[in-house]
Amino acid sequence: MTVTLAELARRFQGKARGNADTLIEGVAALQTAGPRDIAYMSDRKYLSQLAVTKAGAVILTEADATNYPGPALVVANPHLCFAQVAQLFHAFPVFKPGVHPTAVVSPAAKLASSAWVGPNSVIEAGVSIGEGVYIGPGCHVGANATIGAKTRLAANVVIGERCVTGDNCLFHPGAVIGSDGFGFAKDGDRWQKVPQIGRVQIGNEVEVGANTTIDRGALDDTVISDGVKLDNLIQIAHNVRIGENTAIAACVGIAGSTVIGRRCTIGGQAGVTGHLEIADDVHITAGSLVTSSIAQPGVYSASLKAEPAEKWRRNAARLHHLDELARRLAGLEEKLQQHFEEPKN
Amino acid sequence: MTVTLAELARRFQGKARGNADTLIEGVAALQTAGPRDIAYMSDRKYLSQLAVTKAGAVILTEADATNYPGPALVVANPHLCFAQVAQLFHAFPVFKPGVHPTAVVSPAAKLASSAWVGPNSVIEAGVSIGEGVYIGPGCHVGANATIGAKTRLAANVVIGERCVTGDNCLFHPGAVIGSDGFGFAKDGDRWQKVPQIGRVQIGNEVEVGANTTIDRGALDDTVISDGVKLDNLIQIAHNVRIGENTAIAACVGIAGSTVIGRRCTIGGQAGVTGHLEIADDVHITAGSLVTSSIAQPGVYSASLKAEPAEKWRRNAARLHHLDELARRLAGLEEKLQQHFEEPKN
Amino acid sequence: MTVTLAELARRFQGKARGNADTLIEGVAALQTAGPRDIAYMSDRKYLSQLAVTKAGAVILTEADATNYPGPALVVANPHLCFAQVAQLFHAFPVFKPGVHPTAVVSPAAKLASSAWVGPNSVIEAGVSIGEGVYIGPGCHVGANATIGAKTRLAANVVIGERCVTGDNCLFHPGAVIGSDGFGFAKDGDRWQKVPQIGRVQIGNEVEVGANTTIDRGALDDTVISDGVKLDNLIQIAHNVRIGENTAIAACVGIAGSTVIGRRCTIGGQAGVTGHLEIADDVHITAGSLVTSSIAQPGVYSASLKAEPAEKWRRNAARLHHLDELARRLAGLEEKLQQHFEEPKN
Repeated sequence: MTVTLAELARRFQGKARGNADTLIEGVAALQTAGPRDIAYMSDRKYLSQLAVTKAGAVILTEADATNYPGPALVVANPHLCFAQVAQLFHAFPVFKPGVHPTAVVSPAAKLASSAWVGPNSVIEAGVSIGEGVYIGPGCHVGANATIGAKTRLAANVVIGERCVTGDNCLFHPGAVIGSDGFGFAKDGDRWQKVPQIGRVQIGNEVEVGANTTIDRGALDDTVISDGVKLDNLIQIAHNVRIGENTAIAACVGIAGSTVIGRRCTIGGQAGVTGHLEIADDVHITAGSLVTSSIAQPGVYSASLKAEPAEKWRRNAARLHHLDELARRLAGLEEKLQQHFEEPKN
Repeated sequence: MTVTLAELARRFQGKARGNADTLIEGVAALQTAGPRDIAYMSDRKYLSQLAVTKAGAVILTEADATNYPGPALVVANPHLCFAQVAQLFHAFPVFKPGVHPTAVVSPAAKLASSAWVGPNSVIEAGVSIGEGVYIGPGCHVGANATIGAKTRLAANVVIGERCVTGDNCLFHPGAVIGSDGFGFAKDGDRWQKVPQIGRVQIGNEVEVGANTTIDRGALDDTVISDGVKLDNLIQIAHNVRIGENTAIAACVGIAGSTVIGRRCTIGGQAGVTGHLEIADDVHITAGSLVTSSIAQPGVYSASLKAEPAEKWRRNAARLHHLDELARRLAGLEEKLQQHFEEPKN
Repeated sequence: MTVTLAELARRFQGKARGNADTLIEGVAALQTAGPRDIAYMSDRKYLSQLAVTKAGAVILTEADATNYPGPALVVANPHLCFAQVAQLFHAFPVFKPGVHPTAVVSPAAKLASSAWVGPNSVIEAGVSIGEGVYIGPGCHVGANATIGAKTRLAANVVIGERCVTGDNCLFHPGAVIGSDGFGFAKDGDRWQKVPQIGRVQIGNEVEVGANTTIDRGALDDTVISDGVKLDNLIQIAHNVRIGENTAIAACVGIAGSTVIGRRCTIGGQAGVTGHLEIADDVHITAGSLVTSSIAQPGVYSASLKAEPAEKWRRNAARLHHLDELARRLAGLEEKLQQHFEEPKN
């Protein structure tokens, strides 16, 4: 696909600066772009790269475009515009609908005529697959599950029985939706399984990363709302509810029955323990553990920063006696107070 | 299935209170239950839900049943009784034994006549599959592995060669049993692989979560004892041994050769480093790292709790100078001691 | 395979001590070895096991061999020698090349004649598969990907389109290479996907653990250099670059665009945030979070050690007031200084 800079400006509500007839055939980074690529600069720390880029055009803010002599697409939000331009050039390829001869599709499943079921995938009875759905190889869609229109399952994705996904979702390889929640009752020394009979309900425009797992609810459902983005290797436990447009980075764990608000971000390897409520617009930094509910928007943290191990060991050793240290400090304060009977400031 | 409250009381050693002929057809939560559902209350914080529940019957302790006017199943442990009742209503469905035409089963594998091998699963030579085993779609059982009676493999489970599982186990989608341990010998700058020739031995009634990985032993075996419950995305390294009825929450990592006792619980995202011994009845809180052996039962912790980031940053910055701070405190104490030569209290 | 001790000494540049005609047929641990096994001792804490071993021969250093009366293979580095001997006895089995009848191989893929494609694996158009490659069951190799000679994919491995692996790599079950990076642009409350169009480039002799995920680059490539060893359940984000012979233990997360040096080691559950540079020969301890670049080789840490929870709770509570405590200490110091106008030591 070849598009002029003028055409890109028209499509994405920007202004073409410089030669508006510049032909663009793809997107690239400032450093590696060629004369038919469009690049972008979102941060001024890349000004030196902008100075020497060979890109055919660059997406810039008005302020940054002022000093750039080459063809530019001027917009308010270059990162967003770049995403849109990249989506134009890298749309998911058109595919021929149908069912691969090696797929195993129950006669009691309902497939939209524009859907594709890839090789060796298995679609059980009662499944409903919407228009434009793409199911890659090696997937399993359990009985009575529903896959919304234009949703895509990459390779080896598992969607458990009765689970529901909305439209325009994307599931990366190895994602598991609807595994049993971790529910057991104590029976003397042993654990008795509590059957997990809820579902996972996933909204529209949700993305689920590779090998991420989302457990079905114990009785009621686990709920992932519209626009939620989940990175790789995340664990979402039973009966968790995640609000619209929350984004969670890799290796995070959310324990059972916790409710996360809308527009939150959770950094990589962070954790949230069970039965908590996290408000809208809460941001948790990487590696932090949340162990009580958060009612106010804002940034929350509990992570430590690696330092040379010898130094760290000394500090950490003191931490394991911090209560004693604090008592000693209080003792000193009291002693001084008694001896001097100072007037308060 | 429809059962009277009286029948439930008989089966599960409880007492029926109120109309013993109440018909029950399923389980549900207090809030969503209807007149043919049985619910339970395990914690008195849900008393307000109990007051308005529409459940046909509720599983309660004697004390809680006193004030409840509706039909009740009175037992000592409502949570356990609920698990048993739910198992009754939600037993794993009866399946027709056999081998799906798309499965690839070695003629040198031995399958019990009551077992099922699902679509696109691959069973290698020398495998032994017990009575009532259910193997879902897309699984791989490696050469000479043994799957005990009534064990179930959900979709896309991998059991490595020579590994052994006991009876009545449940493996969730994407679980990998018997991948190589992480064993290498330094060879100048490079790493030489140490072949991993042990197995994974899994006992009876073990549950393994989605995308959890259990490595085979280097020379001897990795051992998961009877009744162990593992949640999703857990890593069990080579030659780990886990004692009976220990339960481990999601995202935990156990490093090589560590031995975990019986009846332990390990919270989500906790870690245990290698070559340790953890006693029976040890409980490790979520997010805590265990770096030395634990000889005494009890609760162990090392996790921090997220707080507003600005406040946290100030505290964490001080932590990175805690050794200096402790030295300054000791200096003050000494100085005061010298100046006042106080008599000890 | 049966080999004399003398032959092992010849192959691995060691010295046979004792009966050089001792026949060896396998490797084992000191404690479980029999008369046809060779074992090794790398650490003198196992001297008591050495004293009673039934092994046919033992790999020892010169110093340790002095006091051992039985047949020994004397080398400088017993662990390395053991790895090599074990590789000899446990070489990956010879396999018959070809394509399993249930595999789905595009006519536009190019397979070396000595390669094997296992049951239910799917090889897309434009793929190039090198000599001696072994592809296990249930794998998916995306369009235009390249698999280097003698590389092995265990069961259910996914290699994304256009990704490249070198020679002699090993991918464990469930590994996902080339899933999309986690890239989104803010669009009001919503997230717009930034198409991820880079690749994953993997060097030679790389090992990737079970259910580990490596995302493709956003525009440029994610790069895993020669000799890198990755354990299970690791997340490598888009545009990360990892230097030669770095080894990373399980459950680690490396965030986007971070560059890790050569010969580093990263302990289990450690994390490295995005856009950092980590020098060569950096070692990060288990559970530590790295949040700024590291320019000097050495050991870095930030992990805490679980202790009895009651004690820990008191210390952790103080940590959340550490800034205040430090201010109080400074106040005391100032007060004492004022009151005594002491001469400095």
